[in-house]
Amino acid sequence: MTVLNHSTPSSPMTLLTAVFTPFRADGELDLDVVAAQADAAAGWGARGVYVGGSAGEGASMTTAERKALLERWCGEATGRFDVIAHVGHTSLAEARDLAAHAQRVGADAISAVPPYYHRPADAQAVVGFIGRVCEAAPELPFIYYHIPGMTGVKVPASAVLLAAEDRVPTFAGVKFADGDLADLQRCLDLAEDRFEVYVGSARLLLASMGIGARTAIGSAYNFTAPLYLRMIEHVERGELREARRCQVLAQSAIEAVGRFGGELAGFKAASSLVGPDCGPCRPPLVSPSETELAELRERLDTFGLLPAATGR
Amino acid sequence: MTVLNHSTPSSPMTLLTAVFTPFRADGELDLDVVAAQADAAAGWGARGVYVGGSAGEGASMTTAERKALLERWCGEATGRFDVIAHVGHTSLAEARDLAAHAQRVGADAISAVPPYYHRPADAQAVVGFIGRVCEAAPELPFIYYHIPGMTGVKVPASAVLLAAEDRVPTFAGVKFADGDLADLQRCLDLAEDRFEVYVGSARLLLASMGIGARTAIGSAYNFTAPLYLRMIEHVERGELREARRCQVLAQSAIEAVGRFGGELAGFKAASSLVGPDCGPCRPPLVSPSETELAELRERLDTFGLLPAATGR
Amino acid sequence: MTVLNHSTPSSPMTLLTAVFTPFRADGELDLDVVAAQADAAAGWGARGVYVGGSAGEGASMTTAERKALLERWCGEATGRFDVIAHVGHTSLAEARDLAAHAQRVGADAISAVPPYYHRPADAQAVVGFIGRVCEAAPELPFIYYHIPGMTGVKVPASAVLLAAEDRVPTFAGVKFADGDLADLQRCLDLAEDRFEVYVGSARLLLASMGIGARTAIGSAYNFTAPLYLRMIEHVERGELREARRCQVLAQSAIEAVGRFGGELAGFKAASSLVGPDCGPCRPPLVSPSETELAELRERLDTFGLLPAATGR
Amino acid sequence: MTVLNHSTPSSPMTLLTAVFTPFRADGELDLDVVAAQADAAAGWGARGVYVGGSAGEGASMTTAERKALLERWCGEATGRFDVIAHVGHTSLAEARDLAAHAQRVGADAISAVPPYYHRPADAQAVVGFIGRVCEAAPELPFIYYHIPGMTGVKVPASAVLLAAEDRVPTFAGVKFADGDLADLQRCLDLAEDRFEVYVGSARLLLASMGIGARTAIGSAYNFTAPLYLRMIEHVERGELREARRCQVLAQSAIEAVGRFGGELAGFKAASSLVGPDCGPCRPPLVSPSETELAELRERLDTFGLLPAATGR
Repeated sequence: MTVLNHSTPSSPMTLLTAVFTPFRADGELDLDVVAAQADAAAGWGARGVYVGGSAGEGASMTTAERKALLERWCGEATGRFDVIAHVGHTSLAEARDLAAHAQRVGADAISAVPPYYHRPADAQAVVGFIGRVCEAAPELPFIYYHIPGMTGVKVPASAVLLAAEDRVPTFAGVKFADGDLADLQRCLDLAEDRFEVYVGSARLLLASMGIGARTAIGSAYNFTAPLYLRMIEHVERGELREARRCQVLAQSAIEAVGRFGGELAGFKAASSLVGPDCGPCRPPLVSPSETELAELRERLDTFGLLPAATGR
Repeated sequence: MTVLNHSTPSSPMTLLTAVFTPFRADGELDLDVVAAQADAAAGWGARGVYVGGSAGEGASMTTAERKALLERWCGEATGRFDVIAHVGHTSLAEARDLAAHAQRVGADAISAVPPYYHRPADAQAVVGFIGRVCEAAPELPFIYYHIPGMTGVKVPASAVLLAAEDRVPTFAGVKFADGDLADLQRCLDLAEDRFEVYVGSARLLLASMGIGARTAIGSAYNFTAPLYLRMIEHVERGELREARRCQVLAQSAIEAVGRFGGELAGFKAASSLVGPDCGPCRPPLVSPSETELAELRERLDTFGLLPAATGR
Repeated sequence: MTVLNHSTPSSPMTLLTAVFTPFRADGELDLDVVAAQADAAAGWGARGVYVGGSAGEGASMTTAERKALLERWCGEATGRFDVIAHVGHTSLAEARDLAAHAQRVGADAISAVPPYYHRPADAQAVVGFIGRVCEAAPELPFIYYHIPGMTGVKVPASAVLLAAEDRVPTFAGVKFADGDLADLQRCLDLAEDRFEVYVGSARLLLASMGIGARTAIGSAYNFTAPLYLRMIEHVERGELREARRCQVLAQSAIEAVGRFGGELAGFKAASSLVGPDCGPCRPPLVSPSETELAELRERLDTFGLLPAATGR
Repeated sequence: MTVLNHSTPSSPMTLLTAVFTPFRADGELDLDVVAAQADAAAGWGARGVYVGGSAGEGASMTTAERKALLERWCGEATGRFDVIAHVGHTSLAEARDLAAHAQRVGADAISAVPPYYHRPADAQAVVGFIGRVCEAAPELPFIYYHIPGMTGVKVPASAVLLAAEDRVPTFAGVKFADGDLADLQRCLDLAEDRFEVYVGSARLLLASMGIGARTAIGSAYNFTAPLYLRMIEHVERGELREARRCQVLAQSAIEAVGRFGGELAGFKAASSLVGPDCGPCRPPLVSPSETELAELRERLDTFGLLPAATGR
């Protein structure tokens, strides 16, 4: 079994990125953008890409589209970063199908949210479901994706970790996208050096580092990477006051951008201004209008996040 | 366009049933049970069946399975009741595919929840999504399925109704599965005689009738139909005290059954004791154990809901 | 022990009013307005006044002020309506002091919310608290005030009723200010003819009547009484369609008024335009500005709720 | 104006304690215990005591009792620690009365929750209320007590801080008792060196230190002080792994103790086993039974939190 080790002694924090899915104006998949996205991610040093998750609008795609997208990413990675395939689905059979496909096409890991229409009542029910998903990709490490704000599944991630470690042989970690740092703290303690715990909330990255987090996955890094990389450097040098300043700036940027259609549509639009253009979100999400985009551009400029001469 | 008219002058309340999907012990679809389910529904007078919704675990099925199930129901209906196909999906393309299929195979209406992973922010976003679903089945009336407890979409149903009536030509009604009777009251007022408003909460059926509701869809009727039919008779005869007694009894039965794995797994188990055996729920839902089933059987007996000589 | 019997065979619904507390512009109690309030309540036929509750801003007053206010109301009632004293407080000793005072000065009943800072965990804890309050006014019937939206106490009213009926000798009923009609339904069933169940949500009055409610207490009646009295008349004559129309109109009026500072500040302002002027709310509530008041006046006029020639 | 400076260069974290209020078995105030509590707090180095807040059951006491309690604490402090008087109340007049009294009897600071029955709608409404409280104690610094889980007031603390800094001359800081570390992060950034920000969640102390927090107030320190003092020492020495271990242990202890009647009744019982016996909680809170106390004792022993030879 492949073991994940994104947390390294060489850095206090390793960043992975949750990538947006490129759509054309008519909503169709626009796979040719992936190459530029891959270059951009490799460019700022992302150690991995998380494909088809929340930021990637996986739930808004057909199973066939999700497969096509993943294949393209696996093709573009060329050893520059790991590819983590989100295979979560409300249907176990669809999730298993996606998992088996991910293994077949060379993803480095799979990850899944728990089912989010009928919801598992406790950690045992979560593990009962994800265990069956994992069986379909027995050679890939599995990362549990905890994001109760989207799934409505309130089972603490630490309870899932505890229940999964013995029952799911490929269990490899948790992507923790929630604000409950007491639960994150417990995850980090339980994980020790056996599992990875990826921080999923960019606004809480510094607080999470304070309790021992060493890796993160997020879509905010697609447009805030410079701020966060600077923050991590300050932490490395023990310049905590400056690190805090970066974190607060990043928080402000994130909140400012979120006003343009929420974290997803806003983040995607911001990322498209900073890097490769991934187009609009699919319904039911609503992307910013042209006027709003102009405003958003200005906001990004205020935060120093626009590339020097994009020409756009 | 087919117009729904389940509310009739001849009865104060018309009941439709939300049917469970039959699975085998190994979780596979067991389509041969549908015939018996259809006979049972026709037997107690259900005017329609709602297929592949919450009770039907539509979200836990693949798109292919949902189609196969619907085809079987259309085949078994034989004019005895209407078939309403739930085509809701987080992916617009999958939902459209399901909608087109429903029209092709002869369903009488389609219905859908709003997308429930990425959630619409307002009524316009809801209608933006469902309008595109409806275009794929232009000959079928569309029923909006409002069930915020499952979908997390808090937009009032009355706001969706208002936004949809002009924009969605096939808009035909709302299945209202929530406890906010002020919103239901407004829906009923807006609907007048142009749209149907189906009560989705069996515990609130009598209260809903008090404000003018005349139709309902629910899975609880699969095991409580005798109680509700009696209640409706009492209302017809103006025997309100007795009607209330029936409603309170039904509420107690529903709450007692819900203790056996929640409303879904508990209701399905109870219905399997009363009528055709639909087997267990799929993960992540957990069906009652044998011991629990024995207990559940006793509870149903207390409420007089077990058929006289089931032999089971 | 005095027994409450506000529900009578002579009418399908008896209305009581929750009165606002008159404050001067500087926030001081303005007791001289009470006489006019009493005349107004008697004028439209309120069978009782509920003093110092949510509408009365009891929590925003000192204990001494609450006593002074109650005394004035008892003095003005002169047999025209019952006076129900709200004695709820987070401190048991203060609540008992208020209860004893209410009995001494001739209130007809006491009522209390459960404590709302430290909250009771279950019905036993609720009854443990209110039982001690009742001991301080052993001759007055007690009405439990269920309003989870304000108190944060989620224990179902029906559970409190069940736990209280044997342990609290003066237990006489429930004021049910919540939208969970399944809980209300159970309360009405448990209450039979032994206890009163007062509907506290004017928007749900008709729905509540559908499941057997026969009395209500609310502050909305201070400005919507004409609409509701007409609605009740329609119910008496079996004109259900017209009754529903009145209820929907009242709901719209309530929601329109609520936009002017929320249900409390908005309702108080509306009532001051329709009847005696009770002045502003105390902090932290914010009463409508002059501009807003002019707008509110227009809205009330639209609903036909402004008195013909108020001269104001 | 006295300026608070609990955060010092000499330590990464200064702890203050939120003290329990001693009651006798019959619920009466037992002021003679305060001397022993003061000695205990001084003993482990608490830099301040927070009197009559959530832990102190201020809301369950009469205004007269709150004053008597505060007087006793001011008398026992004797320069060993600061006395912060919680003067929050739903009634502005009562809160002002408590504030004026606190200044008169020599408290070092006042603090208040926002009103929690009628709730302020925004930061302006919060400041409108607390500003008037502060006017009654113009010589005492004011600490805003943010604890949305109890008050139901969801206005971010950072918004209150921003609104208060110019309008309330004695504004001196925030006691932040919530899990939203993004809001805490913003508070710390806004506060700079002008205001104190006291962490109110002991479970999140280390995470809070990671983003710059340097002071805390909590009731958990009454029984977990040894663990936290050790944690702080580890931080000072740069032993982060060991510090995290202490934090996780403390979290486990807190959660174990919370099972004995919730955080308040459980914490009070644990503190009474470790230090001076403060007796039971007042209704509606329910203190652990004798059997539960024995169990609780064992749990504390497991965590090494029982004093070596208490003889109890």
